[in-house]
Amino acid sequence: MASGANGQGVGAGALLAILRDGRARTRGELARLTGLSRSTVTQRLDGLIDQRWVVAGEDSISSGGRPAGVFAFNGGARAVFAADLGATHARLAVLDLSMNVLAERAAELPVEQGPERTLCQVADVLSDLLATTGLDPAQVCGVGVGLPGPVEHGSGRPVNPPIMPGWDGFAVPEWLQGRLGAPVLVDNDVNIMALGEHWAAGPAVDPLIYVKIGTGIGSGIVSGGRLHRGAQGAAGDVGHIRVTGSLAPCRCGNAGCLEAVAGGASMAAALRAAGIEAAGSRDVVALMRAGDLTATRLVRQAGREVGAVMASIVNFFNPSVIVLGGDVAEAGEQVLAGVRETIYSRSLPLATQHLAIRASELGDRAGIVGAAVMVAEHVLAPSAIDRQIAG
Amino acid sequence: MASGANGQGVGAGALLAILRDGRARTRGELARLTGLSRSTVTQRLDGLIDQRWVVAGEDSISSGGRPAGVFAFNGGARAVFAADLGATHARLAVLDLSMNVLAERAAELPVEQGPERTLCQVADVLSDLLATTGLDPAQVCGVGVGLPGPVEHGSGRPVNPPIMPGWDGFAVPEWLQGRLGAPVLVDNDVNIMALGEHWAAGPAVDPLIYVKIGTGIGSGIVSGGRLHRGAQGAAGDVGHIRVTGSLAPCRCGNAGCLEAVAGGASMAAALRAAGIEAAGSRDVVALMRAGDLTATRLVRQAGREVGAVMASIVNFFNPSVIVLGGDVAEAGEQVLAGVRETIYSRSLPLATQHLAIRASELGDRAGIVGAAVMVAEHVLAPSAIDRQIAG
Repeated sequence: MASGANGQGVGAGALLAILRDGRARTRGELARLTGLSRSTVTQRLDGLIDQRWVVAGEDSISSGGRPAGVFAFNGGARAVFAADLGATHARLAVLDLSMNVLAERAAELPVEQGPERTLCQVADVLSDLLATTGLDPAQVCGVGVGLPGPVEHGSGRPVNPPIMPGWDGFAVPEWLQGRLGAPVLVDNDVNIMALGEHWAAGPAVDPLIYVKIGTGIGSGIVSGGRLHRGAQGAAGDVGHIRVTGSLAPCRCGNAGCLEAVAGGASMAAALRAAGIEAAGSRDVVALMRAGDLTATRLVRQAGREVGAVMASIVNFFNPSVIVLGGDVAEAGEQVLAGVRETIYSRSLPLATQHLAIRASELGDRAGIVGAAVMVAEHVLAPSAIDRQIAG
Repeated sequence: MASGANGQGVGAGALLAILRDGRARTRGELARLTGLSRSTVTQRLDGLIDQRWVVAGEDSISSGGRPAGVFAFNGGARAVFAADLGATHARLAVLDLSMNVLAERAAELPVEQGPERTLCQVADVLSDLLATTGLDPAQVCGVGVGLPGPVEHGSGRPVNPPIMPGWDGFAVPEWLQGRLGAPVLVDNDVNIMALGEHWAAGPAVDPLIYVKIGTGIGSGIVSGGRLHRGAQGAAGDVGHIRVTGSLAPCRCGNAGCLEAVAGGASMAAALRAAGIEAAGSRDVVALMRAGDLTATRLVRQAGREVGAVMASIVNFFNPSVIVLGGDVAEAGEQVLAGVRETIYSRSLPLATQHLAIRASELGDRAGIVGAAVMVAEHVLAPSAIDRQIAG
């Protein structure tokens, strides 16, 4: 998007991209930043104001003695539907394009009901939420959905999702668009959480790796401001990396996977083997919070195992930050301590000197924020804005 | 580089970027591809022809019954100096911008002589080579240099290079530009080899990981057509990833690093411990080629160790291809077999289904081709071309 000194190629979309940081700017500032003439800036701002992407501020700031109007991104002009679906629970929300949550609801919503029943409920709740905001359905510019399984990037359809019976190949975007009347973008839940955390951390924090430790373990990678998906869209699957000294069988068919020693399901199984009742990751966390020593030791050791895997990835990828999220990781400092302990002892000093390893900033809102970010990137892409204003 | 339907923002540089694939195209084809009007295409082509970036072909192809001139990228109009420096040897070359090697020389050139003596010889050899091509120094549009150590991306200066005494912080670009009169770009040798292999494989092969197994072990990562450098420029350092079941001391100060069990220097040490004379990686390779069983077993096992590390990285990064280069890897099929054996048994089927694991295509030319690619990307960047033609 870098412009020549003559502003060639700087359309209204590029102007809006500058304003998206939230700072209001004068015509003169925008002319300087883009190389466009003031008259062209004015013309492009008119188009953006016309479409309500930009508001002319009431404020004026002094510029060479003359008061000059300022212009700002109007994040509140449009709304986004966001749905973050887990195996049994979902978080649904309406946000604006500045990522303010206008309404939200957590709901019990098992995906094993199949796609139509689940998505029907999703659409109903989202419509209810919109009504509470007083916004008009025409203001909804897109729908972002995170699903707990692999999603084909081009089509937005689930691909052999292990815990979503009936969803394989289901046309989620088309189905939901038919119900909600806005374009629908779908991705894997861990990917959208990574996007959400990257948005919260700010664009300078890059590359970012988000690791979710819940029932299973997965990660999402943001590099150069975009999701790194890999050649087959399979990138980030750290849960099935082999760890040292374990032959624990894994649900993937291999043995010794990280998930099989450090995932919430495996810890619950280990507790049961020790005669302690625990059905899943939430019970493990509850036991640890209640001071159960076996659970606490298990969680700490899980942190070390995750750290051992991430230490290799730090050497390879040199991230700026590793964000830990999910039930187990958010339960307290035991996981974080274990991860840090191992990474700092094993990775290269150059790669860890400025590396931040920290808990999720957004917690269980990471998914809905990420889903809204995904929609915003699509709707506010400079070429999309240029097309809209030219049309 | 996507254009709006009206060709807004498509400058001469964007037109040249389309032609860089080597295919000649008519004005009509270029107008269709860019959305520009034919008259604008003609005007931009005139500028490109004027600067000799484009040639009008003699050929004509039928288009609606009328013969139409074709236009092609003129890769031969400029030359690039390329220098790939190893610890003791260097490869120096003159290439054109279509990556044709016009002249090259391998030279003994120990970097431990220090920067000024070494770079003096580099400049002399490059000037000699240029003279043999009959090209004029004014045609040299840039110099690409690979160094056997870490290089700060912004400045092109070595940063604490372990095997390059006297080079720390030395202003390599400024020094060489003073001697050769063209802009100089410097990067780590493994990074430029990765760029070279990515060029040879073609843009569709992405992401690509190039692993160099020589005295030490390192890797270069190309993703989205660009080098992935990481937050501190330390990405790709796979040689110091901890491997299972080893406590072998490593020159980095840690123990059990991949390089300490699978690098050429460590294998030579293992051979010496078994009473077999071997000074370095080249001797290991020579022994293996001569049928020495101990050397052959060591190399095969080294392949397995590299494979174990790369198996984790395949799950995390989902590359399209892993290219193996360097003395040891290029010595035969033992390394390749070991790497494949381990990756296919440990990584996820989705990530390995289409994964290619193969030997370097360019061999010891990967560095000079990559250095020339680095210069070409810089010189032919659309914004650089736009500026040149506007000026």
